[in-house]
Amino acid sequence: MIHHRLLSSLGNRMIEEAKKLAGYAAVNNHVKNNQALGIGSGSTIVHAVHRLAERVKQENLNVVCVPTSFQARQLILQNGLTLTDLDRHPELDVAIDGADEVDSDLNLIKGGGGCLTQEKIVAGCAKSFIVIADYRKDSQSLGEQWKKGIPIEVIPMAYVPVAKTLASRFGGVAELRLAVSKAGPVVTDNGNFLLDWKFDKVHDWSIVNTAIKMIPGVVDTGLFINMAEKVYFGLEDGSVSVHEKSGH
Amino acid sequence: MIHHRLLSSLGNRMIEEAKKLAGYAAVNNHVKNNQALGIGSGSTIVHAVHRLAERVKQENLNVVCVPTSFQARQLILQNGLTLTDLDRHPELDVAIDGADEVDSDLNLIKGGGGCLTQEKIVAGCAKSFIVIADYRKDSQSLGEQWKKGIPIEVIPMAYVPVAKTLASRFGGVAELRLAVSKAGPVVTDNGNFLLDWKFDKVHDWSIVNTAIKMIPGVVDTGLFINMAEKVYFGLEDGSVSVHEKSGH
Repeated sequence: MIHHRLLSSLGNRMIEEAKKLAGYAAVNNHVKNNQALGIGSGSTIVHAVHRLAERVKQENLNVVCVPTSFQARQLILQNGLTLTDLDRHPELDVAIDGADEVDSDLNLIKGGGGCLTQEKIVAGCAKSFIVIADYRKDSQSLGEQWKKGIPIEVIPMAYVPVAKTLASRFGGVAELRLAVSKAGPVVTDNGNFLLDWKFDKVHDWSIVNTAIKMIPGVVDTGLFINMAEKVYFGLEDGSVSVHEKSGH
Repeated sequence: MIHHRLLSSLGNRMIEEAKKLAGYAAVNNHVKNNQALGIGSGSTIVHAVHRLAERVKQENLNVVCVPTSFQARQLILQNGLTLTDLDRHPELDVAIDGADEVDSDLNLIKGGGGCLTQEKIVAGCAKSFIVIADYRKDSQSLGEQWKKGIPIEVIPMAYVPVAKTLASRFGGVAELRLAVSKAGPVVTDNGNFLLDWKFDKVHDWSIVNTAIKMIPGVVDTGLFINMAEKVYFGLEDGSVSVHEKSGH
Protein backbone atom coordinates (compact mmCIF):
# COMPACT_ATOMS: atom_id res chain seq x y z
CA MET A 1 0.00 0.00 0.00
CA ILE A 2 2.74 2.44 0.99
CA HIS A 3 4.73 1.21 -1.99
CA HIS A 4 1.75 1.86 -4.27
CA ARG A 5 1.15 5.33 -2.86
CA LEU A 6 4.80 6.19 -3.26
CA LEU A 7 4.82 5.07 -6.89
CA SER A 8 1.64 7.00 -7.59
CA SER A 9 3.01 10.13 -6.01
CA LEU A 10 6.25 9.77 -7.99
CA GLY A 11 4.17 9.23 -11.13
CA ASN A 12 2.14 12.36 -10.50
CA ARG A 13 5.29 14.37 -9.94
CA MET A 14 6.72 13.06 -13.18
CA ILE A 15 3.56 13.96 -15.11
CA GLU A 16 3.51 17.44 -13.60
CA GLU A 17 7.19 17.88 -14.50
CA ALA A 18 6.46 16.76 -18.08
CA LYS A 19 3.64 19.31 -18.37
CA LYS A 20 5.97 22.00 -17.10
CA LEU A 21 8.71 21.09 -19.59
CA ALA A 22 6.26 21.31 -22.49
CA GLY A 23 4.74 24.60 -21.32
CA TYR A 24 8.10 26.24 -20.76
CA ALA A 25 9.48 25.09 -24.14
CA ALA A 26 6.45 26.42 -26.03
CA VAL A 27 6.56 29.81 -24.33
CA ASN A 28 10.33 30.06 -24.78
CA ASN A 29 10.18 29.25 -28.50
CA HIS A 30 7.02 31.01 -29.67
CA VAL A 31 6.36 34.11 -27.59
CA LYS A 32 7.90 37.38 -28.81
CA ASN A 33 7.43 41.00 -27.87
CA ASN A 34 4.29 42.83 -29.06
CA GLN A 35 2.24 39.72 -29.64
CA ALA A 36 -1.42 38.96 -29.07
CA LEU A 37 -1.67 35.50 -27.50
CA GLY A 38 -4.40 32.93 -26.97
CA ILE A 39 -4.27 31.24 -23.56
CA GLY A 40 -5.67 27.72 -23.32
CA SER A 41 -7.41 25.91 -20.46
CA GLY A 42 -6.55 22.93 -18.29
CA SER A 43 -3.70 21.84 -16.05
CA THR A 44 -0.80 22.03 -18.53
CA ILE A 45 -1.44 25.64 -19.52
CA VAL A 46 -0.88 26.69 -15.90
CA HIS A 47 2.86 26.07 -16.36
CA ALA A 48 2.93 27.97 -19.65
CA VAL A 49 1.28 30.99 -18.02
CA HIS A 50 3.79 30.90 -15.15
CA ARG A 51 6.65 30.94 -17.64
CA LEU A 52 4.93 33.66 -19.69
CA ALA A 53 4.55 35.87 -16.59
CA GLU A 54 8.21 35.28 -15.79
CA ARG A 55 9.35 36.29 -19.28
CA VAL A 56 7.04 39.33 -19.36
CA LYS A 57 8.61 40.57 -16.12
CA GLN A 58 12.23 39.69 -16.94
CA GLU A 59 12.18 40.90 -20.56
CA ASN A 60 9.58 43.63 -20.12
CA LEU A 61 7.47 42.10 -22.89
CA ASN A 62 4.38 43.86 -24.16
CA VAL A 63 1.88 41.05 -24.81
CA VAL A 64 -1.89 40.81 -24.52
CA CYS A 65 -3.79 37.61 -23.73
CA VAL A 66 -7.17 36.25 -24.90
CA PRO A 67 -8.56 33.55 -22.58
CA THR A 68 -10.30 30.37 -23.76
CA SER A 69 -12.40 29.96 -20.62
CA PHE A 70 -13.24 31.42 -17.22
CA GLN A 71 -10.30 29.42 -15.84
CA ALA A 72 -7.90 30.91 -18.40
CA ARG A 73 -9.18 34.41 -17.64
CA GLN A 74 -8.46 33.90 -13.93
CA LEU A 75 -4.98 32.54 -14.72
CA ILE A 76 -4.19 35.60 -16.85
CA LEU A 77 -5.36 37.99 -14.14
CA GLN A 78 -3.73 36.11 -11.24
CA ASN A 79 -0.41 36.18 -13.07
CA GLY A 80 -0.57 39.91 -13.74
CA LEU A 81 -0.84 39.56 -17.52
CA THR A 82 -2.82 41.91 -19.77
CA LEU A 83 -6.28 40.61 -20.57
CA THR A 84 -7.89 41.32 -23.94
CA ASP A 85 -10.59 39.73 -26.13
CA LEU A 86 -11.33 38.85 -29.75
CA ASP A 87 -13.32 42.07 -30.27
CA ARG A 88 -10.11 44.05 -29.82
CA HIS A 89 -7.73 41.38 -31.15
CA PRO A 90 -9.53 39.16 -33.67
CA GLU A 91 -6.15 38.04 -35.04
CA LEU A 92 -3.73 36.38 -32.66
CA ASP A 93 -0.07 35.66 -33.27
CA VAL A 94 0.09 32.47 -31.23
CA ALA A 95 -2.36 30.38 -29.25
CA ILE A 96 -1.01 27.85 -26.75
CA ASP A 97 -3.24 25.14 -25.33
CA GLY A 98 -3.20 21.61 -23.96
CA ALA A 99 -4.84 18.52 -25.43
CA ASP A 100 -6.32 15.27 -24.15
CA GLU A 101 -4.83 13.26 -26.99
CA VAL A 102 -2.72 13.90 -30.10
CA ASP A 103 -2.49 11.50 -33.04
CA SER A 104 0.36 11.10 -35.50
CA ASP A 105 -1.24 13.62 -37.90
CA LEU A 106 -1.43 16.17 -35.04
CA ASN A 107 -5.19 15.88 -34.87
CA LEU A 108 -6.42 16.39 -31.32
CA ILE A 109 -9.11 15.43 -28.88
CA LYS A 110 -9.81 18.37 -26.57
CA GLY A 111 -12.57 19.24 -24.16
CA GLY A 112 -11.91 17.03 -21.16
CA GLY A 113 -12.15 20.29 -19.23
CA GLY A 114 -15.30 21.28 -21.12
CA CYS A 115 -13.87 24.41 -22.79
CA LEU A 116 -13.59 23.07 -26.33
CA THR A 117 -15.76 25.66 -28.08
CA GLN A 118 -13.93 28.73 -26.80
CA GLU A 119 -10.62 26.90 -27.23
CA LYS A 120 -11.43 26.21 -30.88
CA ILE A 121 -12.56 29.81 -31.46
CA VAL A 122 -9.29 31.16 -30.07
CA ALA A 123 -7.12 28.57 -31.86
CA GLY A 124 -8.93 29.42 -35.10
CA CYS A 125 -7.95 33.09 -34.70
CA ALA A 126 -4.24 32.34 -34.26
CA LYS A 127 -1.57 32.34 -36.95
CA SER A 128 0.18 29.56 -34.99
CA PHE A 129 -1.61 27.08 -32.77
CA ILE A 130 0.89 25.40 -30.44
CA VAL A 131 -0.07 22.43 -28.29
CA ILE A 132 1.58 21.38 -25.04
CA ALA A 133 1.10 18.01 -23.37
CA ASP A 134 2.74 15.34 -21.28
CA TYR A 135 3.91 12.02 -22.74
CA ARG A 136 0.63 10.25 -21.93
CA LYS A 137 -1.23 12.21 -24.63
CA ASP A 138 0.93 10.99 -27.52
CA SER A 139 -0.92 8.41 -29.66
CA GLN A 140 -0.69 6.96 -33.12
CA SER A 141 -4.45 7.04 -33.41
CA LEU A 142 -7.15 8.84 -31.39
CA GLY A 143 -8.71 6.67 -28.70
CA GLU A 144 -5.53 4.70 -27.98
CA GLN A 145 -4.86 6.54 -24.72
CA TRP A 146 -7.90 8.74 -24.17
CA LYS A 147 -10.86 6.58 -23.12
CA LYS A 148 -13.40 9.25 -22.16
CA GLY A 149 -14.61 9.85 -25.71
CA ILE A 150 -14.89 12.95 -27.85
CA PRO A 151 -16.58 15.87 -26.06
CA ILE A 152 -19.33 17.54 -28.07
CA GLU A 153 -20.98 20.77 -26.93
CA VAL A 154 -24.71 20.86 -27.64
CA ILE A 155 -27.64 23.22 -27.21
CA PRO A 156 -29.40 21.84 -24.09
CA MET A 157 -32.76 21.14 -25.78
CA ALA A 158 -31.00 18.96 -28.39
CA TYR A 159 -28.92 16.61 -26.27
CA VAL A 160 -31.20 13.58 -26.64
CA PRO A 161 -31.65 13.71 -30.44
CA VAL A 162 -27.96 14.56 -30.99
CA ALA A 163 -26.89 11.59 -28.80
CA LYS A 164 -29.22 9.29 -30.75
CA THR A 165 -27.97 10.58 -34.10
CA LEU A 166 -24.33 10.11 -33.08
CA ALA A 167 -24.90 6.50 -32.09
CA SER A 168 -27.02 5.58 -35.08
CA ARG A 169 -24.82 7.26 -37.69
CA PHE A 170 -21.34 6.64 -36.30
CA GLY A 171 -21.70 3.84 -33.72
CA GLY A 172 -20.56 3.88 -30.11
CA VAL A 173 -22.50 5.69 -27.42
CA ALA A 174 -22.82 9.37 -26.44
CA GLU A 175 -23.39 10.20 -22.79
CA LEU A 176 -24.48 13.46 -21.18
CA ARG A 177 -21.64 14.68 -18.96
CA LEU A 178 -22.88 14.98 -15.39
CA ALA A 179 -21.54 17.47 -12.87
CA VAL A 180 -19.77 16.35 -9.72
CA SER A 181 -20.20 19.45 -7.57
CA LYS A 182 -23.86 20.06 -8.34
CA ALA A 183 -26.86 17.94 -9.30
CA GLY A 184 -27.49 17.46 -12.99
CA PRO A 185 -25.44 18.06 -16.12
CA VAL A 186 -22.24 20.04 -16.59
CA VAL A 187 -23.12 23.45 -18.02
CA THR A 188 -20.35 24.95 -20.16
CA ASP A 189 -19.06 28.53 -20.00
CA ASN A 190 -21.44 29.12 -22.94
CA GLY A 191 -24.50 27.74 -21.10
CA ASN A 192 -24.62 24.49 -23.07
CA PHE A 193 -24.40 20.75 -22.30
CA LEU A 194 -21.64 18.26 -23.17
CA LEU A 195 -21.95 14.82 -24.70
CA ASP A 196 -18.97 12.49 -24.42
CA TRP A 197 -19.06 10.32 -27.51
CA LYS A 198 -17.36 6.97 -26.93
CA PHE A 199 -16.64 5.84 -30.48
CA ASP A 200 -16.10 2.17 -31.23
CA LYS A 201 -13.72 2.33 -34.18
CA VAL A 202 -11.16 4.58 -35.86
CA HIS A 203 -12.86 7.01 -38.26
CA ASP A 204 -11.72 9.43 -40.91
CA TRP A 205 -11.79 12.20 -38.33
CA SER A 206 -11.95 15.08 -40.76
CA ILE A 207 -15.09 13.72 -42.40
CA VAL A 208 -16.70 12.69 -39.12
CA ASN A 209 -15.90 16.03 -37.49
CA THR A 210 -17.70 17.91 -40.28
CA ALA A 211 -20.64 15.50 -40.20
CA ILE A 212 -21.02 15.89 -36.43
CA LYS A 213 -20.77 19.67 -36.49
CA MET A 214 -23.52 19.75 -39.17
CA ILE A 215 -26.00 17.96 -36.87
CA PRO A 216 -28.47 20.67 -35.76
CA GLY A 217 -27.86 21.45 -32.09
CA VAL A 218 -24.12 20.74 -32.15
CA VAL A 219 -22.20 23.87 -31.15
CA ASP A 220 -18.76 22.37 -31.66
CA THR A 221 -16.75 19.18 -31.26
CA GLY A 222 -13.58 18.38 -29.34
CA LEU A 223 -11.92 17.20 -32.56
CA PHE A 224 -9.27 19.72 -33.64
CA ILE A 225 -8.45 18.62 -37.17
CA ASN A 226 -5.53 20.09 -39.06
CA MET A 227 -5.25 23.01 -36.62
CA ALA A 228 -2.11 22.31 -34.54
CA GLU A 229 1.15 23.50 -36.06
CA LYS A 230 3.46 21.99 -33.43
CA VAL A 231 3.02 19.81 -30.39
CA TYR A 232 5.47 19.90 -27.47
CA PHE A 233 5.47 16.69 -25.45
CA GLY A 234 7.19 16.71 -22.08
CA LEU A 235 8.81 13.27 -21.63
CA GLU A 236 9.54 11.08 -18.61
CA ASP A 237 13.31 11.49 -19.06
CA GLY A 238 13.09 15.27 -18.65
CA SER A 239 13.42 16.08 -22.34
CA VAL A 240 10.88 17.61 -24.74
CA SER A 241 9.84 16.02 -28.02
CA VAL A 242 8.46 18.33 -30.72
CA HIS A 243 6.08 16.98 -33.34
CA GLU A 244 5.41 19.08 -36.40
CA LYS A 245 2.80 18.78 -39.09
CA SER A 246 4.34 17.09 -42.09
CA GLY A 247 4.93 19.75 -44.70
CA HIS A 248 5.97 22.29 -42.06
CA MET B 1 -51.75 60.01 -48.10
CA ILE B 2 -55.13 58.47 -47.26
CA HIS B 3 -54.95 56.62 -50.55
CA HIS B 4 -51.50 55.30 -49.64
CA ARG B 5 -52.57 54.25 -46.16
CA LEU B 6 -55.60 52.48 -47.57
CA LEU B 7 -53.48 50.57 -50.07
CA SER B 8 -50.98 49.66 -47.40
CA SER B 9 -53.70 48.45 -45.08
CA LEU B 10 -55.26 46.41 -47.89
CA GLY B 11 -51.81 44.99 -48.68
CA ASN B 12 -51.24 43.99 -45.07
CA ARG B 13 -54.62 42.33 -44.92
CA MET B 14 -53.84 40.42 -48.11
CA ILE B 15 -50.49 39.25 -46.72
CA GLU B 16 -52.11 38.17 -43.45
CA GLU B 17 -54.78 36.29 -45.40
CA ALA B 18 -52.07 34.58 -47.48
CA LYS B 19 -50.26 33.47 -44.32
CA LYS B 20 -53.51 32.10 -42.93
CA LEU B 21 -54.25 30.16 -46.12
CA ALA B 22 -50.80 28.53 -46.03
CA GLY B 23 -50.99 27.70 -42.33
CA TYR B 24 -54.48 26.20 -42.59
CA ALA B 25 -53.60 24.11 -45.64
CA ALA B 26 -50.48 22.65 -44.00
CA VAL B 27 -52.31 21.74 -40.79
CA ASN B 28 -55.24 20.27 -42.73
CA ASN B 29 -53.02 18.11 -44.93
CA HIS B 30 -50.27 16.97 -42.58
CA VAL B 31 -51.58 16.69 -39.03
CA LYS B 32 -53.06 13.35 -37.97
CA ASN B 33 -54.08 11.83 -34.66
CA ASN B 34 -51.34 10.63 -32.26
CA GLN B 35 -48.57 12.71 -33.76
CA ALA B 36 -45.65 14.55 -32.20
CA LEU B 37 -45.36 17.95 -33.89
CA GLY B 38 -42.74 20.65 -34.16
CA ILE B 39 -44.14 24.18 -33.91
CA GLY B 40 -42.21 26.94 -35.67
CA SER B 41 -41.77 30.61 -34.82
CA GLY B 42 -42.83 33.85 -36.44
CA SER B 43 -46.04 35.46 -37.68
CA THR B 44 -47.21 32.78 -40.12
CA ILE B 45 -47.10 29.93 -37.61
CA VAL B 46 -49.69 31.77 -35.48
CA HIS B 47 -52.36 30.88 -38.03
CA ALA B 48 -51.23 27.24 -38.19
CA VAL B 49 -51.47 26.95 -34.40
CA HIS B 50 -54.96 28.46 -34.43
CA ARG B 51 -56.07 25.89 -36.98
CA LEU B 52 -54.31 23.11 -35.04
CA ALA B 53 -56.12 24.08 -31.84
CA GLU B 54 -59.42 24.10 -33.77
CA ARG B 55 -58.82 20.63 -35.18
CA VAL B 56 -57.67 19.22 -31.82
CA LYS B 57 -60.93 20.42 -30.25
CA GLN B 58 -63.25 19.43 -33.10
CA GLU B 59 -61.68 16.04 -33.84
CA ASN B 60 -60.46 15.29 -30.32
CA LEU B 61 -56.92 14.78 -31.61
CA ASN B 62 -54.18 13.54 -29.34
CA VAL B 63 -51.08 15.48 -30.42
CA VAL B 64 -48.05 16.83 -28.54
CA CYS B 65 -46.06 19.91 -29.56
CA VAL B 66 -42.35 20.77 -29.37
CA PRO B 67 -41.70 24.54 -29.59
CA THR B 68 -38.84 26.12 -31.57
CA SER B 69 -38.62 29.23 -29.38
CA PHE B 70 -40.03 31.01 -26.35
CA GLN B 71 -42.65 32.52 -28.68
CA ALA B 72 -43.70 29.07 -29.96
CA ARG B 73 -43.92 27.76 -26.40
CA GLN B 74 -46.25 30.61 -25.45
CA LEU B 75 -48.37 30.00 -28.57
CA ILE B 76 -48.73 26.31 -27.70
CA LEU B 77 -49.76 27.08 -24.13
CA GLN B 78 -52.09 29.96 -25.02
CA ASN B 79 -53.91 27.74 -27.49
CA GLY B 80 -54.41 24.93 -24.98
CA LEU B 81 -52.16 22.46 -26.82
CA THR B 82 -49.99 19.84 -25.10
CA LEU B 83 -46.41 20.97 -24.66
CA THR B 84 -43.54 18.47 -24.85
CA ASP B 85 -39.81 18.55 -25.65
CA LEU B 86 -37.13 16.65 -27.56
CA ASP B 87 -36.05 14.76 -24.42
CA ARG B 88 -39.42 13.02 -24.41
CA HIS B 89 -40.03 13.10 -28.17
CA PRO B 90 -36.70 13.12 -30.03
CA GLU B 91 -38.49 11.97 -33.18
CA LEU B 92 -41.28 14.13 -34.55
CA ASP B 93 -43.80 13.20 -37.21
CA VAL B 94 -44.15 16.67 -38.70
CA ALA B 95 -42.58 20.07 -38.08
CA ILE B 96 -44.34 23.15 -39.49
CA ASP B 97 -42.53 26.47 -39.71
CA GLY B 98 -42.35 29.69 -41.68
CA ALA B 99 -39.47 30.99 -43.79
CA ASP B 100 -38.08 34.34 -44.84
CA GLU B 101 -37.37 33.16 -48.36
CA VAL B 102 -37.68 29.93 -50.37
CA ASP B 103 -35.77 29.25 -53.56
CA SER B 104 -36.74 26.96 -56.45
CA ASP B 105 -34.85 24.03 -54.86
CA LEU B 106 -36.81 24.56 -51.61
CA ASN B 107 -33.72 25.83 -49.82
CA LEU B 108 -34.65 28.42 -47.22
CA ILE B 109 -33.42 31.49 -45.44
CA LYS B 110 -34.78 31.51 -41.89
CA GLY B 111 -33.94 33.43 -38.75
CA GLY B 112 -35.45 36.86 -39.37
CA GLY B 113 -37.07 36.27 -35.98
CA GLY B 114 -33.77 35.07 -34.52
CA CYS B 115 -34.89 31.51 -33.69
CA LEU B 116 -32.98 29.69 -36.43
CA THR B 117 -30.97 27.32 -34.22
CA GLN B 118 -33.90 25.87 -32.32
CA GLU B 119 -35.95 25.85 -35.54
CA LYS B 120 -33.25 23.81 -37.29
CA ILE B 121 -32.94 21.42 -34.34
CA VAL B 122 -36.68 20.76 -34.38
CA ALA B 123 -36.90 20.52 -38.18
CA GLY B 124 -33.99 18.07 -38.11
CA CYS B 125 -35.93 15.79 -35.74
CA ALA B 126 -39.02 15.65 -37.97
CA LYS B 127 -39.85 12.98 -40.54
CA SER B 128 -41.56 15.74 -42.59
CA PHE B 129 -40.59 19.38 -42.47
CA ILE B 130 -43.39 21.50 -43.93
CA VAL B 131 -42.95 25.20 -44.64
CA ILE B 132 -45.70 27.82 -44.77
CA ALA B 133 -45.29 31.28 -46.24
CA ASP B 134 -47.02 34.09 -48.08
CA TYR B 135 -46.41 34.79 -51.76
CA ARG B 136 -43.66 37.36 -51.04
CA LYS B 137 -41.25 34.63 -49.88
CA ASP B 138 -41.26 32.72 -53.18
CA SER B 139 -37.98 33.27 -55.10
CA GLN B 140 -36.03 31.58 -57.85
CA SER B 141 -32.82 32.30 -56.02
CA LEU B 142 -32.08 33.33 -52.41
CA GLY B 143 -31.61 37.06 -51.98
CA GLU B 144 -34.09 38.02 -54.72
CA GLN B 145 -36.77 39.07 -52.22
CA TRP B 146 -35.09 38.86 -48.82
CA LYS B 147 -32.64 41.75 -48.43
CA LYS B 148 -31.73 41.42 -44.74
CA GLY B 149 -29.08 38.76 -45.32
CA ILE B 150 -28.55 35.29 -43.87
CA PRO B 151 -28.81 35.20 -40.06
CA ILE B 152 -25.94 33.37 -38.37
CA GLU B 153 -26.01 32.59 -34.65
CA VAL B 154 -22.60 32.97 -33.01
CA ILE B 155 -21.00 32.54 -29.59
CA PRO B 156 -20.79 36.16 -28.30
CA MET B 157 -16.99 36.22 -27.88
CA ALA B 158 -16.55 35.22 -31.55
CA TYR B 159 -18.75 37.72 -33.36
CA VAL B 160 -15.90 39.96 -34.59
CA PRO B 161 -13.63 37.21 -35.99
CA VAL B 162 -16.60 35.34 -37.49
CA ALA B 163 -17.84 38.53 -39.21
CA LYS B 164 -14.35 39.15 -40.60
CA THR B 165 -14.00 35.56 -41.81
CA LEU B 166 -17.39 35.67 -43.54
CA ALA B 167 -16.51 38.84 -45.44
CA SER B 168 -13.00 37.76 -46.39
CA ARG B 169 -13.92 34.23 -47.48
CA PHE B 170 -17.33 34.74 -49.05
CA GLY B 171 -17.63 38.49 -49.74
CA GLY B 172 -20.41 40.82 -48.67
CA VAL B 173 -20.66 42.14 -45.13
CA ALA B 174 -21.83 40.61 -41.83
CA GLU B 175 -23.43 42.92 -39.28
CA LEU B 176 -24.18 42.33 -35.62
CA ARG B 177 -27.96 42.45 -35.15
CA LEU B 178 -28.83 45.19 -32.69
CA ALA B 179 -31.84 45.12 -30.40
CA VAL B 180 -34.63 47.68 -30.67
CA SER B 181 -36.14 47.40 -27.20
CA LYS B 182 -32.88 47.39 -25.25
CA ALA B 183 -29.40 48.79 -25.70
CA GLY B 184 -26.87 46.56 -27.43
CA PRO B 185 -27.14 43.36 -29.45
CA VAL B 186 -30.03 40.95 -29.84
CA VAL B 187 -29.46 37.97 -27.54
CA THR B 188 -31.03 34.74 -28.82
CA ASP B 189 -33.09 32.28 -26.78
CA ASN B 190 -29.78 30.36 -26.48
CA GLY B 191 -27.86 33.35 -25.10
CA ASN B 192 -25.92 34.01 -28.30
CA PHE B 193 -25.53 36.88 -30.81
CA LEU B 194 -26.73 37.10 -34.42
CA LEU B 195 -24.83 38.23 -37.49
CA ASP B 196 -26.82 39.14 -40.59
CA TRP B 197 -24.61 38.28 -43.53
CA LYS B 198 -25.47 40.37 -46.58
CA PHE B 199 -23.97 38.31 -49.37
CA ASP B 200 -23.09 39.93 -52.67
CA LYS B 201 -23.59 37.05 -55.11
CA VAL B 202 -25.40 33.77 -55.54
CA HIS B 203 -23.41 30.91 -53.98
CA ASP B 204 -23.62 27.14 -53.99
CA TRP B 205 -25.59 27.31 -50.76
CA SER B 206 -24.97 23.74 -49.68
CA ILE B 207 -21.19 24.21 -49.82
CA VAL B 208 -21.27 27.68 -48.28
CA ASN B 209 -23.61 26.56 -45.49
CA THR B 210 -21.19 23.78 -44.47
CA ALA B 211 -18.20 26.11 -44.71
CA ILE B 212 -19.90 28.72 -42.51
CA LYS B 213 -21.04 26.23 -39.89
CA MET B 214 -17.45 24.92 -39.66
CA ILE B 215 -16.11 28.37 -38.66
CA PRO B 216 -15.34 28.11 -34.93
CA GLY B 217 -17.89 30.15 -32.99
CA VAL B 218 -20.76 29.59 -35.43
CA VAL B 219 -23.65 27.86 -33.67
CA ASP B 220 -25.86 27.55 -36.74
CA THR B 221 -26.89 29.35 -39.91
CA GLY B 222 -30.27 30.45 -41.24
CA LEU B 223 -29.69 28.40 -44.40
CA PHE B 224 -31.96 25.35 -44.39
CA ILE B 225 -30.57 23.26 -47.22
CA ASN B 226 -32.40 20.19 -48.48
CA MET B 227 -34.61 20.07 -45.38
CA ALA B 228 -38.07 21.22 -46.53
CA GLU B 229 -40.28 18.52 -47.99
CA LYS B 230 -43.12 20.81 -49.08
CA VAL B 231 -43.76 24.54 -49.07
CA TYR B 232 -47.28 25.97 -48.94
CA PHE B 233 -47.48 29.48 -50.36
CA GLY B 234 -50.63 31.49 -49.70
CA LEU B 235 -51.29 33.56 -52.83
CA GLU B 236 -52.87 36.96 -53.43
CA ASP B 237 -55.86 35.43 -55.24
CA GLY B 238 -56.85 33.39 -52.19
CA SER B 239 -55.44 30.10 -53.44
CA VAL B 240 -52.54 28.03 -52.13
CA SER B 241 -49.60 26.90 -54.23
CA VAL B 242 -47.69 23.82 -53.08
CA HIS B 243 -44.05 23.35 -54.04
CA GLU B 244 -42.47 19.95 -53.56
CA LYS B 245 -38.88 18.84 -53.67
CA SER B 246 -38.22 17.31 -57.06
CA GLY B 247 -38.07 13.57 -56.59
CA HIS B 248 -40.91 13.60 -54.05
